[in-house]
Amino acid sequence: MSGRIVVVGLGPGSPDQMTPEARAALIEASDFFGYAPYLDRLELAPGQTRHASDNREELSRAGAALDMAASGRSVAVVSGGDAGIFAMAAAVCEAIEAGPLAWREIEFRVVPGVTAMLAVAARTGAPLGHDFCAMSLSDNLKPWELIEARLRAAAGAGFVLAFYNPVSRARPWQLGRAFEILREILAPATPVIFGRAAGRPDERMTVTTLGEARSDQADMATCVIVGSAETRVVAREGRPPLVYSPRSAGRQAR
Amino acid sequence: MSGRIVVVGLGPGSPDQMTPEARAALIEASDFFGYAPYLDRLELAPGQTRHASDNREELSRAGAALDMAASGRSVAVVSGGDAGIFAMAAAVCEAIEAGPLAWREIEFRVVPGVTAMLAVAARTGAPLGHDFCAMSLSDNLKPWELIEARLRAAAGAGFVLAFYNPVSRARPWQLGRAFEILREILAPATPVIFGRAAGRPDERMTVTTLGEARSDQADMATCVIVGSAETRVVAREGRPPLVYSPRSAGRQAR
Repeated sequence: MSGRIVVVGLGPGSPDQMTPEARAALIEASDFFGYAPYLDRLELAPGQTRHASDNREELSRAGAALDMAASGRSVAVVSGGDAGIFAMAAAVCEAIEAGPLAWREIEFRVVPGVTAMLAVAARTGAPLGHDFCAMSLSDNLKPWELIEARLRAAAGAGFVLAFYNPVSRARPWQLGRAFEILREILAPATPVIFGRAAGRPDERMTVTTLGEARSDQADMATCVIVGSAETRVVAREGRPPLVYSPRSAGRQAR
Repeated sequence: MSGRIVVVGLGPGSPDQMTPEARAALIEASDFFGYAPYLDRLELAPGQTRHASDNREELSRAGAALDMAASGRSVAVVSGGDAGIFAMAAAVCEAIEAGPLAWREIEFRVVPGVTAMLAVAARTGAPLGHDFCAMSLSDNLKPWELIEARLRAAAGAGFVLAFYNPVSRARPWQLGRAFEILREILAPATPVIFGRAAGRPDERMTVTTLGEARSDQADMATCVIVGSAETRVVAREGRPPLVYSPRSAGRQAR
């Protein structure tokens, strides 16, 4: 007897930004696993069971979800944004690889969603309109030296950067250090966006520059976008500025 | 008299993957601009007007759309996937910056969507589960030397790579050359995904290796994902393999 597991991206926060495919997958599931604040967004029906966990316990949460699916249940694992971007889909795949062979026979599906950087970009213009990198600034699962090397490589090659997990209570200095490194490579006028809680009632978008950016402008709900040498800011009277990265590049080819 | 312009990401192709926010924005608009195949996805109501154009004419399309918005109309510019990722949002911002000051007063909004790489990743596991770069392989708007430099920088630093615009009739050799460069940096066993038309009836997902990958496996509707040294393939009996990039990294720290 084998059930199924679906990993669902709920989108950035507004119900209007969750896809119909995600909504349908949630209706079909019997058991819901996820970080509590994401589960809080759902209205479960009678007979649907909630299994909340802390946000540091991704692999054990994935194992528990697979265990329940293997017992014949229809399990949904939920993530904010997209399920595959610094989220639960990779943890479930990792658990499948490391777990009993029977877990490979479980019907497994991932439902994509609008990931945070896309929602933040949309609110501010088109800062990701050209080549870009998405990085987690968390050094819980990779050495800080690797993060530094990636920052230097990506900024040096002219990629726009989008940072997930920029800060947390346990990681207070990493974003500030990242800005320091980027100031060695990029001009002080380079646009920086702090995009907090895009699409939610407490949304806050801040456009500043690399020279002025401070790490205390970000919290755990913030996606930070750092432009390239090509990224432009267009002032508009009575409206917030537009930030965009042109489709063309090459002035600073190296 | 000033109208408004909304740039809308339609999602990768399945109507189930278009957000309710996008659907609502389309209902409100009077005039629709876009590349003809994207406009073909819409069912316009009486009174809604279609202004199709070829896919190489992004900037003139943006200008025509802004012109019409400035005349008081409610204009939607549509893109496949997400409007901000190698799509129309950047072209509209560019046109606003270069155009008459009155265009800065137009109400401007971007509605995000599920971009192709997210849909392809979801269909195959979680290949974008760790740090990654998204690049256009088109050298129409940037020099090929810059693309080569970015390939080397990103692959060398351990990013997974997602390629948009991998090939076209006018650009037959670029993807093959990109694979050659990557073979100098990454092992032949590195997973490669050709993700064609994700979510559409003619969807085709191919998982292969960098050693085996051929550029003729991609067409204009394909998003190509090249793994990092960390990316894993999990074989499953009777099911397609899972491809994922673990949340942790550091074995090959440099």
